[in-house]
Amino acid sequence: MRLRLAAVLLSAMLAGPATAASLPELIADPGQWAIQTGDFQNTRHSRLDQIDRSNVGRLKVAWTFSTGVLRGHEGGPLVIGDVMYVHTPFPNVVYALDLNREGEILWRYEPKQDPSTIEVMCCDTVYRGLAYDDGLIFLHQADTTVVALDAKTGAVRWSVTNGDPEKGEVNTATVLPARGRLIVGHAGGEFGVRCHLTAYDQKTGARLWRAYTTGPDTDMLIDPATTTSLGKPVGTESSLASWEGDQWQIGGACPWGWFSYDPDLDLVYYGTGNPATWNPVQRPGDNRWSNSIIARDLATGVARWVYQMTPHDEWDYDGVNEMILTEQEIGGTPRKLLTHFDRNGFGYTLDRATGELLIAEKFDPATNWASAIDLDPASETYGRPVLDPTYSTDQDGMGEDMTTEGICPGALGAKNQQPAAFSPQTKLFYVPTNHVCMDYEPFRVTYTAGQPYVGATLRLYPAPAGQGFEEPGIMGSLTAVDGATGKVVWALPERFSVWSGVLATAGGVVFYGTLEGYLKAVDAATGKELWRFRTASGIVGNVTTYSHAGKQYVAVLSGIGGWAGIGLAAGLTDPSDGSGAVGAYEGLAKYTANGGVLTVFELP
Amino acid sequence: MRLRLAAVLLSAMLAGPATAASLPELIADPGQWAIQTGDFQNTRHSRLDQIDRSNVGRLKVAWTFSTGVLRGHEGGPLVIGDVMYVHTPFPNVVYALDLNREGEILWRYEPKQDPSTIEVMCCDTVYRGLAYDDGLIFLHQADTTVVALDAKTGAVRWSVTNGDPEKGEVNTATVLPARGRLIVGHAGGEFGVRCHLTAYDQKTGARLWRAYTTGPDTDMLIDPATTTSLGKPVGTESSLASWEGDQWQIGGACPWGWFSYDPDLDLVYYGTGNPATWNPVQRPGDNRWSNSIIARDLATGVARWVYQMTPHDEWDYDGVNEMILTEQEIGGTPRKLLTHFDRNGFGYTLDRATGELLIAEKFDPATNWASAIDLDPASETYGRPVLDPTYSTDQDGMGEDMTTEGICPGALGAKNQQPAAFSPQTKLFYVPTNHVCMDYEPFRVTYTAGQPYVGATLRLYPAPAGQGFEEPGIMGSLTAVDGATGKVVWALPERFSVWSGVLATAGGVVFYGTLEGYLKAVDAATGKELWRFRTASGIVGNVTTYSHAGKQYVAVLSGIGGWAGIGLAAGLTDPSDGSGAVGAYEGLAKYTANGGVLTVFELP
Ligand SMILES: O=C(O)c1cc(C(=O)O)c2c(n1)C(=O)C(=O)c1cc(C(=O)O)[nH]c1-2
Ligand SMILES: O=C(O)c1cc(C(=O)O)c2c(n1)C(=O)C(=O)c1cc(C(=O)O)[nH]c1-2
Repeated sequence: MRLRLAAVLLSAMLAGPATAASLPELIADPGQWAIQTGDFQNTRHSRLDQIDRSNVGRLKVAWTFSTGVLRGHEGGPLVIGDVMYVHTPFPNVVYALDLNREGEILWRYEPKQDPSTIEVMCCDTVYRGLAYDDGLIFLHQADTTVVALDAKTGAVRWSVTNGDPEKGEVNTATVLPARGRLIVGHAGGEFGVRCHLTAYDQKTGARLWRAYTTGPDTDMLIDPATTTSLGKPVGTESSLASWEGDQWQIGGACPWGWFSYDPDLDLVYYGTGNPATWNPVQRPGDNRWSNSIIARDLATGVARWVYQMTPHDEWDYDGVNEMILTEQEIGGTPRKLLTHFDRNGFGYTLDRATGELLIAEKFDPATNWASAIDLDPASETYGRPVLDPTYSTDQDGMGEDMTTEGICPGALGAKNQQPAAFSPQTKLFYVPTNHVCMDYEPFRVTYTAGQPYVGATLRLYPAPAGQGFEEPGIMGSLTAVDGATGKVVWALPERFSVWSGVLATAGGVVFYGTLEGYLKAVDAATGKELWRFRTASGIVGNVTTYSHAGKQYVAVLSGIGGWAGIGLAAGLTDPSDGSGAVGAYEGLAKYTANGGVLTVFELP
Repeated sequence: MRLRLAAVLLSAMLAGPATAASLPELIADPGQWAIQTGDFQNTRHSRLDQIDRSNVGRLKVAWTFSTGVLRGHEGGPLVIGDVMYVHTPFPNVVYALDLNREGEILWRYEPKQDPSTIEVMCCDTVYRGLAYDDGLIFLHQADTTVVALDAKTGAVRWSVTNGDPEKGEVNTATVLPARGRLIVGHAGGEFGVRCHLTAYDQKTGARLWRAYTTGPDTDMLIDPATTTSLGKPVGTESSLASWEGDQWQIGGACPWGWFSYDPDLDLVYYGTGNPATWNPVQRPGDNRWSNSIIARDLATGVARWVYQMTPHDEWDYDGVNEMILTEQEIGGTPRKLLTHFDRNGFGYTLDRATGELLIAEKFDPATNWASAIDLDPASETYGRPVLDPTYSTDQDGMGEDMTTEGICPGALGAKNQQPAAFSPQTKLFYVPTNHVCMDYEPFRVTYTAGQPYVGATLRLYPAPAGQGFEEPGIMGSLTAVDGATGKVVWALPERFSVWSGVLATAGGVVFYGTLEGYLKAVDAATGKELWRFRTASGIVGNVTTYSHAGKQYVAVLSGIGGWAGIGLAAGLTDPSDGSGAVGAYEGLAKYTANGGVLTVFELP
């Protein structure tokens, strides 16, 4: 009750359509949704509680808004004061909608981008959304142009070019505004680009630092003495030593996912993508720091610690999924944690100050490429997966043109970029999963700038019955994981992968979307379904909530797409297209067609 | 109550997803929406009354469905048994949705059409919807391919080519299935095509007859002795005599609007479009039978009677708007009537058996090109408009390259194709109007097959304040017109033209959509607004209602477009583009973006 009042008061203070309030202030107000991830910690938990277990069943549509663009609509709207900011996939149109007038358009910004950019986007034309701070809206376009727009007018304040789409450098990620810096990633792992994380000055767009994820220490902003991995200094040229020759130059490992920030430690956390190519035989070594969690000092960019989940990736297990920062007791001791549900099927919890690995548990029971993660600090293989050679696609260098069957999870991971939520009330993580396995056949490729540098053929299919769910054909779930132990508490099966981001609220409700297009609300404690609504198209967006004029709303973007929805989104029909996703998800065509619609819900 | 029960019973009888019930049977069941126009009479009145004045305020969204296509979504879904059939604008995708499973896709049909067809569509890529009879779904594609699909499976049963898009012959209209015949029109007036109405055999697609709207009597299926106009035989070569030379060959006058049918008289009613070009100086004469109502014998195609609303059109006043067939008393005598709200600003009521003109009243008070229609049967100018020479764009052959200002209505008419509804309870017509005027400058054009043959530059703008509404800037209204007198009873002003078709129900509610995207419900008696909902995009679709499992639903397509919405739909920004519509409706960009979404409403 007190919280709700605070929200109303703060909202009332925010005069006019957009305000110049700072992001930390806005995040502190549960009435706003000021950052894609809900908060710097990426918990996607809202303290709003008007909509709760008892009344969510009566939720109804308040209004809808078509974005004018089709294909995968990832991310979600921001709410700052009386204004909602909505983005679209390529060409990345931005709308400022007036919440006082049911979403009338205050301004729109339509960047002109070369359509050839679409051809170098690996996994649909998605964009995971805008960011805001101090009166500026930050747009990171598909073609890697970073633009700061005046939140009141849509006027361009500054704009910089972060990469080169001709080489395959593109963007799908949101940016992170933190203490005057803008943290910016990019994509292109499937095109063999050399990836980096960059900090720009929020006010001017001036570049402050850039940290590559492969290559010499100086490029990577790694200090061999102070940058640690699992508690020990990484040593000199930790990346160079893990690649053959200069393969690190075309080694991918893009930070195309999410960013977290700990204001006290002043550390930015993010994950890096798969090493290029997907043919592991072509790139001996651990391929550092691909598939890794990296903690960097916001001010200098220097890496504090790194941890590689999947050394020498043989399965396309990008490590970019979100890092959720929580404070919990582990073994009776309160700790500052970082939890990360990786594509490789393991959920990792680390001490986020030190990078110490505390928990690593399978959150998809089908996971078979590794039986466990070595958690013994005394072991030589501390932190490394205990591999099952049956599912190696490298096969000690003999794997080329051989098909390895039945690998779980499939390349799109037990979880992809669609973010989980954490509720401090239930102390559960709510993880949107893929329950998908694969056959994988690596083949040799040569690098040509701007051309696909993939090197593997895949077949994707549901995990076998009995490995998580009794029914056959289950391709995903909403899985609740105990925050303190990493153990699965319950899991709700879904016909298709859950490709939408989850929202947990103080009302005891967890929301998520399905590829068929349902927005669902379940009981945060038990997972019992409380409500569902069939939106216009498949949901790959992330559910958000906000309050306006004292009333709580829930909002979500519909629009089938992303890797799982690429068949419908791009009109592909060959089952092997989209690296096997077209075949695996062809059943989706029974449920949905392309779209691009925001739906806003309210209580009657 | 009896009606609702009958509906439930009939619905229960209709086994499986689609049935082979005949169209008249389905129309008799108010639970179905079996024909675009609601019934053969085009009343768009439903006898369903679950949703009524008292509860419509609680209407909420039941489910939504994105069609996967953007641009103007005209027409509406059909409901046959447990299946809803949804169409899209070009490329005219057809979906069969399972109403028992919240709109799961039973089948989809995606025609392959040459995108160059889009270039010869004058007024957006719209399509006014599917038709059904005896187990077949009839699709008339933009490229004039007429396809009969198995309603259960989507399999093509037959397909014929009705015209040639290379010449500019395209289609936007629905077809009319009547007594085993399929009545088929087409478009292309702005490309100087020679237009016709064609009847095909429903079962086989064999062509039964074709009636041109200009040219020799034999081509027109006019019998100079028995075909009448205002009660008198039209005489030999009534069309040829009204054109100079062979201009009738490129004279347009397309039947691109709606079709009505009187089963007792076995007559089909429809209107013809504007004569080509828009430059009246280039085509002296009355230009028959452009801008006319034509009644044809269904079996033979022979014209029973004709009536030309706007002889020698100087303003682009196509006569294609729907013909609403009612039985009402006029001057104490019950009569079989045909009422038609024309683009030219007059609402006409005729005896539909004889073609006698009974009423002609302005339904937009701004109308100024003519002061009245001569209703004196004894007069030499009986049935002709009483012109105001100030607003002539021909200016006795001197009008070329002269701008005539302040003509009302503008070229898109006081009402365009968006259909009105009639309630037998209130005996009111509910007319969606444009309250728009224009400046018109004709210029000389030469005909080239497949090239625009327009010949006029327009500026469109709201009618002046005080000519209907006190507020300035009003561009449309929902206008209630007394069925027996043709007088306006009330009119609800709208900021923009009402470009959606109206639905009237036995619940005493009238529904219509707005270009901003609102679906509105008003009291059928008083016009008082009872409810509104902001759909995903501007509404140019027609509101429908049906019942399923004993519950009444209201459905409407959103998707800005049509002539009024062409700026947004086609991404045009030059105010003079779209024959002036881009400038006139540029304010729309504040409210909506492109879309293609079906929204289905229900009571809680
Ligand atoms: O390595 C890369 O650069 C890169 C980029 C992206 C992207 O930018 O969307 C994806 C992936 N990889 C990827 O592996 C992947 O599974 C994936 C899924 C999606 C999506 O949005 O659904 N993007 C991406
Ligand atoms: O003369 C023709 O052939 C023709 C065709 C069409 C059409 O097919 O949509 C329109 C018109 N004319 C026309 O004059 C007009 O105002 C118009 C509006 C619309 C629409 O759907 O919004 N179509 C058409």
